[in-house]
Amino acid sequence: MTVYLVGAGPGDPELLTLKAARLLRDCDVVVHDRLGSEVLELCPPHVQRIDVGKAHGQSHTQVQINSLLVELGAAGLNVVRLKGGDPYLFGRGGEEAQALSDADVPWEVVPGVTSALSLPALAGVPVTHRSLSDSVTVLTGHRIEGWDTNVEALAAAGGTLVIVMGVANRGRIATRLMTAGMNALTPVCVIERGSTPHERVIRVSLSELGTINVESPAVIVVGAVAGLDLHQSLLLHSVDTAVTSIGNTRQPQA
Amino acid sequence: MTVYLVGAGPGDPELLTLKAARLLRDCDVVVHDRLGSEVLELCPPHVQRIDVGKAHGQSHTQVQINSLLVELGAAGLNVVRLKGGDPYLFGRGGEEAQALSDADVPWEVVPGVTSALSLPALAGVPVTHRSLSDSVTVLTGHRIEGWDTNVEALAAAGGTLVIVMGVANRGRIATRLMTAGMNALTPVCVIERGSTPHERVIRVSLSELGTINVESPAVIVVGAVAGLDLHQSLLLHSVDTAVTSIGNTRQPQA
Repeated sequence: MTVYLVGAGPGDPELLTLKAARLLRDCDVVVHDRLGSEVLELCPPHVQRIDVGKAHGQSHTQVQINSLLVELGAAGLNVVRLKGGDPYLFGRGGEEAQALSDADVPWEVVPGVTSALSLPALAGVPVTHRSLSDSVTVLTGHRIEGWDTNVEALAAAGGTLVIVMGVANRGRIATRLMTAGMNALTPVCVIERGSTPHERVIRVSLSELGTINVESPAVIVVGAVAGLDLHQSLLLHSVDTAVTSIGNTRQPQA
Repeated sequence: MTVYLVGAGPGDPELLTLKAARLLRDCDVVVHDRLGSEVLELCPPHVQRIDVGKAHGQSHTQVQINSLLVELGAAGLNVVRLKGGDPYLFGRGGEEAQALSDADVPWEVVPGVTSALSLPALAGVPVTHRSLSDSVTVLTGHRIEGWDTNVEALAAAGGTLVIVMGVANRGRIATRLMTAGMNALTPVCVIERGSTPHERVIRVSLSELGTINVESPAVIVVGAVAGLDLHQSLLLHSVDTAVTSIGNTRQPQA
């Protein structure tokens, strides 16, 4: 009789945590977002599945989802609320947790592998890397007019940016970042359907981001590290001097 | 005959991924950092374990670790390089990957649950939350003089900051952030030994951060979200007006 707010990871079912897999095996009901069917195959057939994902035209509002979780939890069921990536990183898991706390329904969060950091890694892009970037900022791109974060300041900070849910606005995001002072040649790496068999990795410069074809879901990495491909022994994508310089600094140690 | 760069998650062995657990069961040798012994219990007894963690006075340099991985991989062994948290978020996994690529040794990265985002979540702090913060920046606090990131700009950006490896410098970090313009009353949440039975959560304001007792490893969250405790139905830690206002905006829907 607990509601578990569980991160499903970036897509590959093997990137679920051991705890997520155990809870999916043992629960009574799963309330899930739009997720790959392979992830849900971890549930035995008797587990009830409720799809509240946005891609099916059912248009569950967040308030409806909150109420559903409270209702199921209050009924004494063990509930897994399965969310893509990590529950609290733009996942609105915080709102679900608050609703459950307010209703005195026991709940627990089970962190997952976040898409924002893991998909770049799988594509050969380390979000931090010595001498290139010592910070990484994750932000959402689906409502750039309403950004609470001061993007001009963020651009000036100079660390890696990872933008999730930014595909539709990619051209405006690029323009906004360049207006904020980022170099048009800043490397960008876009990872479409990362960690799945359909993964596609696109490398461009910031000024080209608006012109490429890409579909959701995708993660957009902006910054010097986006020019790295760790799968290559040579750093091929040295669009800017920072990337070139790390290539040089590695040579003397060899 | 692959070297797997594997994230071990924040400490709780159940927060390893299914893939990490499978590789630990099937590998020939594990090269690991200082990690909880429970995580290593996932390896069968015949698996060779090499501790390159920094807490044992052995002082393996990064160059030595890189050479060791190349040597083991080139010898045809299946190697798990097990790193705390996530391999590429300040884990220097990128350097290991480059060394392996340069030596033509096959390798693969297996992302993990990052401590920087998961430990706040477990402590009731969502790193992003509607109307409080729509971005989160992770940075390392162990060499603040050498920060490449423009901290003044980052403070002006207004999103959540998560600082890892910042315990020793916590007083200087607080001073630097306040000098950069952050309010002295900004909520701070420090999570010590998160996700373990010894977890301790400390909530203070930014001006108090330098005065508290805390030991490594710990994660420091700075920003309005650090005043939230989702385990409480009321928002008790409303140190600043932003936190108070979200409390108010929730009421009308009730």
